[in-house]
Amino acid sequence: MPPIMTTLSESGNVRRATMNDVARLAGVSIKTVSRVVNAESGVHPATAERVLAAIDQLGFRRNLSARNLRRGTGTGTLGLVLEDLANPFYSVLTRAVEEVARMQGKQVLTGSSDEDPARERELVLEFCARRVDGLIVVPAGHQHGYIAHEINAGTPVVFVDRPPGNLDADTVLIDNAGGTALAARHLAEHGHRDIAFLGDAPEIHTAAERLRGFREGCAQAGVPFSPDLVLMGPHTDESVAQALRATLQRATALVTGNNRITVQALRALAGRPRRPALVGFDDFELADLLDPPISVITHDTWALGRSAAELLFARLDGDRTPPRRLVVPTRLLARGSGEVSR
Amino acid sequence: MPPIMTTLSESGNVRRATMNDVARLAGVSIKTVSRVVNAESGVHPATAERVLAAIDQLGFRRNLSARNLRRGTGTGTLGLVLEDLANPFYSVLTRAVEEVARMQGKQVLTGSSDEDPARERELVLEFCARRVDGLIVVPAGHQHGYIAHEINAGTPVVFVDRPPGNLDADTVLIDNAGGTALAARHLAEHGHRDIAFLGDAPEIHTAAERLRGFREGCAQAGVPFSPDLVLMGPHTDESVAQALRATLQRATALVTGNNRITVQALRALAGRPRRPALVGFDDFELADLLDPPISVITHDTWALGRSAAELLFARLDGDRTPPRRLVVPTRLLARGSGEVSR
Repeated sequence: MPPIMTTLSESGNVRRATMNDVARLAGVSIKTVSRVVNAESGVHPATAERVLAAIDQLGFRRNLSARNLRRGTGTGTLGLVLEDLANPFYSVLTRAVEEVARMQGKQVLTGSSDEDPARERELVLEFCARRVDGLIVVPAGHQHGYIAHEINAGTPVVFVDRPPGNLDADTVLIDNAGGTALAARHLAEHGHRDIAFLGDAPEIHTAAERLRGFREGCAQAGVPFSPDLVLMGPHTDESVAQALRATLQRATALVTGNNRITVQALRALAGRPRRPALVGFDDFELADLLDPPISVITHDTWALGRSAAELLFARLDGDRTPPRRLVVPTRLLARGSGEVSR
Repeated sequence: MPPIMTTLSESGNVRRATMNDVARLAGVSIKTVSRVVNAESGVHPATAERVLAAIDQLGFRRNLSARNLRRGTGTGTLGLVLEDLANPFYSVLTRAVEEVARMQGKQVLTGSSDEDPARERELVLEFCARRVDGLIVVPAGHQHGYIAHEINAGTPVVFVDRPPGNLDADTVLIDNAGGTALAARHLAEHGHRDIAFLGDAPEIHTAAERLRGFREGCAQAGVPFSPDLVLMGPHTDESVAQALRATLQRATALVTGNNRITVQALRALAGRPRRPALVGFDDFELADLLDPPISVITHDTWALGRSAAELLFARLDGDRTPPRRLVVPTRLLARGSGEVSR
């Protein structure tokens, strides 16, 4: 059965919805909402589905602390495995997880995998050995059969930012392809036909999806997709500089695949009299203060972390519905750098 | 007894020193170093002091994993309480702590206090209730008597970035005053006499120290210190903009007290035809790509986190010497914004 796909609302506001709001939207009684939320029997599956959809749409979240205290189970810790805590994207995500966990009376263990599947596995298994109540994982690898055992043993796991490999599990993603399609169309609208794409390593799900979206955006806008203008990573400062020297002989515009590559590209382009038009994936501090200000594909990183944590707590609270896949939307923030004409 | 003050070497390189290097520098045998490191008896206090000083200077660190495994004690977790994990300064610090902990086979619980002393206390006590093996704390409050009990009960605690209040405990700091003194002298050297200072809330140790250093730097350079050009926080975007409107009627140069205030000031100054000369405390990504590039007082944040973690592991390994205070040096990175003449 395919996972239920839910796109979160743009505002990502989940703090204020009440059980009343959920009941009203689903067209059911509060009692029914309560039954679904508490995984009690006596609710028709189609009705339960409607309630869950309303919960997703509204981002309703119950305060579980009282219940947790009553239960008195678990070690009170969550494990969070990510790629690099020093990257602002992951530190905001971590802070969001921490906030939700705090409201639930739990604390967060963190570990950075540095994009190494062996280290990801080591961290996950260590967290499990420490009997964490649940896990949130930004996967580095593509083989997650080893986690199935933990899930079956009762430790809920939510994947975030990237889906797991060979495992059907809860996942919260960003709309990567939608974002880069927007970027390509935006640049095409400003007259660019030869657009370069600098992405991360193609084995990384987000990088592959962003490339796919870029390609689709080019097709939608009727501009050619040129494989020789695509340079995937992993990138270093030097490889980005070299990629730019090669592609900018022809390309007049550039899409960068994440915050790190955008910064590397800006550094490589500094001092050039004529800059290509540029749209970067991920917003970053000071993007608006550069000259020209940098247009970006942005998303609510806080909502990404919060949604993953909330999904985990729903599971901890007994939600046994099939694995879900939530998608956080992306949007274009046009600041100027993408509007440089050809 | 006052804490032993040790300024770390600028390189902050602690990975390669061996027990041999320590023995050579201290002028003792390896056996003596081993005795000191293992807190064995039979070493004269003055000799032990010399060995510890050599260890500090070289940043020698033993691999303790084998010993930890032999011991098999503790929960294998450290607690890290900081102000805001989403602030790049703290996320780099956390990553450094995580790296040291990992090499020692331990994992890190994190919690953000949001500058709230009650939340700091709550996090510390929760971590202790979870029986963490040790704690690293960026204190939000000034009353730390409550931690003394935990230290006496055998949980080592290292304070980082700010010292504890009413408690003599291990602390790793940045040379805050030295940094802002450098900033003031640098601006004075470029002809500025009226220099504004925008700092964080004066109750925060680092903010008070940075103001003190600024004042000293003005005195050293023979330029007046004007209390009416000093505006301490807590700051918002709006309060920074207002402070700049007020002080820049007279001031021709500006020192900002941390990375957040620097960014707020840059945002407030954007679009002004004439900018004041500026030196900011803390380096930040893209500082070199702004126009003009931003001069900063920089420090090795990674070394700050690593030193705190290493001090904690020394305590976990039985180091019972009096509390120590380590200071990470600061330096001026002149990129241009501080060299704008009056």
